[in-house]
Amino acid sequence: MQFTHGLHRALETTPDAIATICGERKRTFRQLAARVARIAGALRALDVGNGDVVAMLGFNSDHYLEYYLAVPWAGALTNPLNFRWSIDEIIFALNDSLSIVLFVGADFIEHVPALRAGCPALRTIIVCGGDSTPDGCLMLEALIYEHAPIEDAGLDPDMTYGVFYTGGTTGRAKGVLLSQRSICSSGLALLAEGPFADGCIGLHAAPMFHLADLMMTCGLLLRGGTHVMTPAFRPEIALELIERHRVTELLMVPAMMQAMVDHPDFDKRDTGHVRNLLYGASPASEALIDRALSRMPGTAFYQVYGMTEMAALISVLAPSQHAAALRFKGRLRSVGRPFCHTRLRIVDQHGVDCPHEKVGEILVRGPGMMQGYLNQPAATQEALRDGWMHTGDLGYTDASNYVFIVDRLKDMIITGGENVYCAEVENAIATHPAVASCAVIGIPSTEWGEAVHAVVVLNPGHSLTLGALADHCQHLIAGYKCPRSLQLTGALPFSGAGKVLKSELRMSFWEGRSRGVN
Amino acid sequence: MQFTHGLHRALETTPDAIATICGERKRTFRQLAARVARIAGALRALDVGNGDVVAMLGFNSDHYLEYYLAVPWAGALTNPLNFRWSIDEIIFALNDSLSIVLFVGADFIEHVPALRAGCPALRTIIVCGGDSTPDGCLMLEALIYEHAPIEDAGLDPDMTYGVFYTGGTTGRAKGVLLSQRSICSSGLALLAEGPFADGCIGLHAAPMFHLADLMMTCGLLLRGGTHVMTPAFRPEIALELIERHRVTELLMVPAMMQAMVDHPDFDKRDTGHVRNLLYGASPASEALIDRALSRMPGTAFYQVYGMTEMAALISVLAPSQHAAALRFKGRLRSVGRPFCHTRLRIVDQHGVDCPHEKVGEILVRGPGMMQGYLNQPAATQEALRDGWMHTGDLGYTDASNYVFIVDRLKDMIITGGENVYCAEVENAIATHPAVASCAVIGIPSTEWGEAVHAVVVLNPGHSLTLGALADHCQHLIAGYKCPRSLQLTGALPFSGAGKVLKSELRMSFWEGRSRGVN
Repeated sequence: MQFTHGLHRALETTPDAIATICGERKRTFRQLAARVARIAGALRALDVGNGDVVAMLGFNSDHYLEYYLAVPWAGALTNPLNFRWSIDEIIFALNDSLSIVLFVGADFIEHVPALRAGCPALRTIIVCGGDSTPDGCLMLEALIYEHAPIEDAGLDPDMTYGVFYTGGTTGRAKGVLLSQRSICSSGLALLAEGPFADGCIGLHAAPMFHLADLMMTCGLLLRGGTHVMTPAFRPEIALELIERHRVTELLMVPAMMQAMVDHPDFDKRDTGHVRNLLYGASPASEALIDRALSRMPGTAFYQVYGMTEMAALISVLAPSQHAAALRFKGRLRSVGRPFCHTRLRIVDQHGVDCPHEKVGEILVRGPGMMQGYLNQPAATQEALRDGWMHTGDLGYTDASNYVFIVDRLKDMIITGGENVYCAEVENAIATHPAVASCAVIGIPSTEWGEAVHAVVVLNPGHSLTLGALADHCQHLIAGYKCPRSLQLTGALPFSGAGKVLKSELRMSFWEGRSRGVN
Repeated sequence: MQFTHGLHRALETTPDAIATICGERKRTFRQLAARVARIAGALRALDVGNGDVVAMLGFNSDHYLEYYLAVPWAGALTNPLNFRWSIDEIIFALNDSLSIVLFVGADFIEHVPALRAGCPALRTIIVCGGDSTPDGCLMLEALIYEHAPIEDAGLDPDMTYGVFYTGGTTGRAKGVLLSQRSICSSGLALLAEGPFADGCIGLHAAPMFHLADLMMTCGLLLRGGTHVMTPAFRPEIALELIERHRVTELLMVPAMMQAMVDHPDFDKRDTGHVRNLLYGASPASEALIDRALSRMPGTAFYQVYGMTEMAALISVLAPSQHAAALRFKGRLRSVGRPFCHTRLRIVDQHGVDCPHEKVGEILVRGPGMMQGYLNQPAATQEALRDGWMHTGDLGYTDASNYVFIVDRLKDMIITGGENVYCAEVENAIATHPAVASCAVIGIPSTEWGEAVHAVVVLNPGHSLTLGALADHCQHLIAGYKCPRSLQLTGALPFSGAGKVLKSELRMSFWEGRSRGVN
């Protein structure tokens, strides 16, 4: 199956259904396909062919979906860029992938001179939307007007669909190569869990450059559903769109879910059409999940655990496992069981399968698995050795084989010879009423090697001391796991993927030293 | 994805869940996997390797599932045989596929000498179950006992999973080659429609050799569900198993569905756990569907249209479309819309897309599409020209693009879910000394959808009864292909081109009815 499959199928099955809603602009699948075929025609005229890479930098919009479809239609590869990156990071991704064309949203045209200067391979820049076009750039609408539609290149499903840069936490980002087939397999496996049923309407709340949101794109396309775009997530706007367009599917990081259900507008808006809410990409506290469940009682919640290297999907905690009756098993802290197209094992450092409750590295495999990292054969071989993707995540299974993630391999704190998994400490801290959000890191300690350090964002009008926090945690986790120091901050630094950038938090503590655990 | 994927996943996720129930025998996934790995070990010891074909002839049983899994585990190809075929037809399928090993159910050992005599390539015969083993045959249980388990061969997903013989328009059956990937894609697409959810328990009511039932096998495997076997369909036994094992999923041809809901035991048995009932493979009357819907109000009904060449799935009429409110649109006579992994077009004789309501040939494509017909490059090229599977079925779409099938281009009868190619029956009839010429058509049957009807012109001075004709055919073709009724006539109606005008022969039988309209 190719990525464009869903568009063809929708064109044959429901051509006059609404495909995209972006502000006041609505387009049917027939209109979307006509635009896609013309954009592809323009790319072909620009001498873009099989194997060429076409990047995109922009906020969510209907143009983003057109980009995702037109590029494979023309036979080329996508390279969606994280708009939260610095210019240097964007330039790196463009050059590493040898992108020759860049689609730019109108909000990002100020970066054009710097990108052009930094990327010698970049031949063409196409501006999507907006009123002005920098010198030497092309306008998307003009290209659509000027070029005739072409036939879908019909790429082999094993061809690469795109290069997805991930993991800037340890040096340079790596370009994950995903085939068209792997993305479509994930899309089908997602549908197999229940969301994206007939008549679905999805809100692109998360950034469309992100592979997690691409799963929503893929799910909606496979089902012929409607894509509602919002440029960047703002809870009050998301709520308004959910009500106005009777949105049925949401996919969010926990921070978005929290901002939405805690927003003063929440009770004023009708969210009753939301059938499914998928959340994941970073840990969600049980308190937050509980709150969301009670505020959206008609919605099925899915906690998804995944990574770019697996076309975003690894495991899912099904709606049935969110039932209050399963609280005592700690199910809300579990990332569930592997999607039906995925296999999962947890192994010790010798590659031997761990028994229940024993922590080891999570290995996964399945049709969603990446082809490899671009230009990084050694890293590819290391990650995919023995045919399994080595996630670098630490976890364990309970007696029912539900998977619990305890930490990123590299985020584990070793203090006085004991392993402390940050997620566990964070869960404990998060239950304190003063705490809005938090992150736990290891900082240097002459006594213990590393010490547990908490960085906390307070709820408005609250205060917190280390003593009070330690007292609180003492009841929940072992003494050696409790924070030894506390740092209050206004906001945590987040990555584009919604993950706390612990490397940034650690930086000032570890300057000039080595943690010894990486 | 390989066919064995689901077994591995279940082994890793729910090893102690019940995998198979066959009579009083229950086995967990752990036990099933251990047996499969040992059967594969035995096959390897018998020098069965990559690319070899291993056939199976038997009623439904847990051994059938073991066969389906052990053969790819050993790196070989499956070849499930229709037990309704005549010995000649079975021998053809074994020889055409060059099968070197045959698994035989205990109920079929009487055929062993004839099969051995007719199939020089057949090296080994393995008897499954039963108390006695013919000379020179091996016993499955002994092989399991004697051989150590081996690792899964881990075949490439693009390798052929099996050869599935389907009736030939011009006499002989054709061997459809399906890759592991195509079958798994269909399994995922089936799950995406809603059936086979967590905790599913499926009854193998239809014959397991049939690709339609293999979809149930695949769906259950992907979800780690329980397989309940019944040797051959009998409504009272099916009902008892449904009650006893709290069966949640059924897949039936309409004749089975009718026999079940109309059975005197129906009201005495609890069918309340049946969540999903998939039916198809032959036309079902609206009256029957209505009756089934009203007798099983808690069950979701899916009408599935498919064919072997598409790994069984093409389109589905969703449960929502079975609502009484849609009767007026004739939705119950529609085969729905394409599965989300499948594309569908209806074209005229020039290959141009038909407008709504206009009848044309149904073309389909998607990841379920066959690799081709074994040893028949010309037929393959003809069927798959331009990248689309030419189904040979005639149909049209309504304004909402729901698909209606009106007739089959290929001269074929569907009786009780089995395809009968008229040419094959005519060839058999024509060898009778009393027959000067003949034509075979399908006529309406409340029990089987269609029944095989022979129209015969006698040689001068000869006579013929239905009994004598059926006796004659019995030796040449499968029982279900033999004529159920006989009509003697002075002359057949011919077209100007010299073709029998079957539409004229059918007219009196089908007046006021629509043939092949599901």
